[in-house]
Amino acid sequence: MNYYSEKDIRDIVAGVLAQSKLAVAGGCTETSEQIPVEVSARHVHLTQEALEKLFGRGYQLTKKKDLSQPGEFLSGERVKLVTQKGEIANVAVLGPVRKQVQVEVSATDSRTLGIKVPVCLSGDLVGGADMLIIGPEGILEAKECTIVAQAHVHMTPEDAKHYGVTDGQVLSIRLQTERPITLDSVIVRVKQASKLAVHVDFDEANAALVDGNTTGMIVKRG
Amino acid sequence: MNYYSEKDIRDIVAGVLAQSKLAVAGGCTETSEQIPVEVSARHVHLTQEALEKLFGRGYQLTKKKDLSQPGEFLSGERVKLVTQKGEIANVAVLGPVRKQVQVEVSATDSRTLGIKVPVCLSGDLVGGADMLIIGPEGILEAKECTIVAQAHVHMTPEDAKHYGVTDGQVLSIRLQTERPITLDSVIVRVKQASKLAVHVDFDEANAALVDGNTTGMIVKRG
Repeated sequence: MNYYSEKDIRDIVAGVLAQSKLAVAGGCTETSEQIPVEVSARHVHLTQEALEKLFGRGYQLTKKKDLSQPGEFLSGERVKLVTQKGEIANVAVLGPVRKQVQVEVSATDSRTLGIKVPVCLSGDLVGGADMLIIGPEGILEAKECTIVAQAHVHMTPEDAKHYGVTDGQVLSIRLQTERPITLDSVIVRVKQASKLAVHVDFDEANAALVDGNTTGMIVKRG
Repeated sequence: MNYYSEKDIRDIVAGVLAQSKLAVAGGCTETSEQIPVEVSARHVHLTQEALEKLFGRGYQLTKKKDLSQPGEFLSGERVKLVTQKGEIANVAVLGPVRKQVQVEVSATDSRTLGIKVPVCLSGDLVGGADMLIIGPEGILEAKECTIVAQAHVHMTPEDAKHYGVTDGQVLSIRLQTERPITLDSVIVRVKQASKLAVHVDFDEANAALVDGNTTGMIVKRG
């Protein structure tokens, strides 16, 4: 019988564990906490200038319903999106007005409109598609403003600390439905005035059959 | 200093490893081999009887294009799908004729049609939705025939052996795109006359921006 010191044993265990880690390299672990999932339909963000061009001088957005993120709301205003190859009517305008015009559509919408639309993080319009926006009082040529929004998860700095993630980090989030999928490129958006929620678009929602009770959980890849 | 026998050490290591396994329960490893991904648009399978009801007595399907699965083809025939709340025209009929009428639509289509459609494996129509199918020569009331097809991967028995999977097994498959997602409920379909391919519908394809070059890889959950 051989005898080993405690240090020997520690070294042996460490070696075995290192091998074990290799075996699960590329693996992942799931958190068990459930994050609410919300679906964003196609919508438009306008500047005050763009709003006035489309709806008339001095026009103010009317609030129809508060959205989950503090301060954000669904307005009563609607616009039409037009391209050379297609159009989509009755598109919601979200408020409040912003510093940039932004049109968010789904990849399915981009087929209807007959254009190529890049997947971008909201606010990052580099390479965005052109769109004609039509309102009751005017027309706006919105250059490079149209994107497919990348899935993202809103959270407070406290949430971020809790989950051990940082602003801008890319996560996988598993949607727990009867048709489960894992979104493997979800951006973390950390802001003090936030409500914890995963935001997906209608394609992602339909692919996973997301409903009002769907939750997601963070999958950490090793 | 304490001394331990080899058996003591084995027991200690085993205990630590057992804890380690708990820590990676729900983990996963990815294979590196790439499987082609193909997108199924909405379509209809007909029986010979249904074909004749819609297109006329003695009618035979015409072949327009071979599909990837041996013997399957896109026909030149098109039908219209109608519900009380909506309709979709110009829907492809796939050949050859089968023993059962089956209508496959996407969850997005089910919204257009205003009906609830269950996610089922092709061939398993339990609880399928009702649909009116309209052809140039007749109308077919197709009861409980309409489904959203569950994502599946076609393979030969040799492929199945290679990947260590069996017919009917549920896998996760990661779609490698600029908008990566992992489908967490993909059914393995093993058949001798098969070509290795993952089949997804248009919602799943749009959620992941699948194109003609997209491949998927099997993710094995621990």
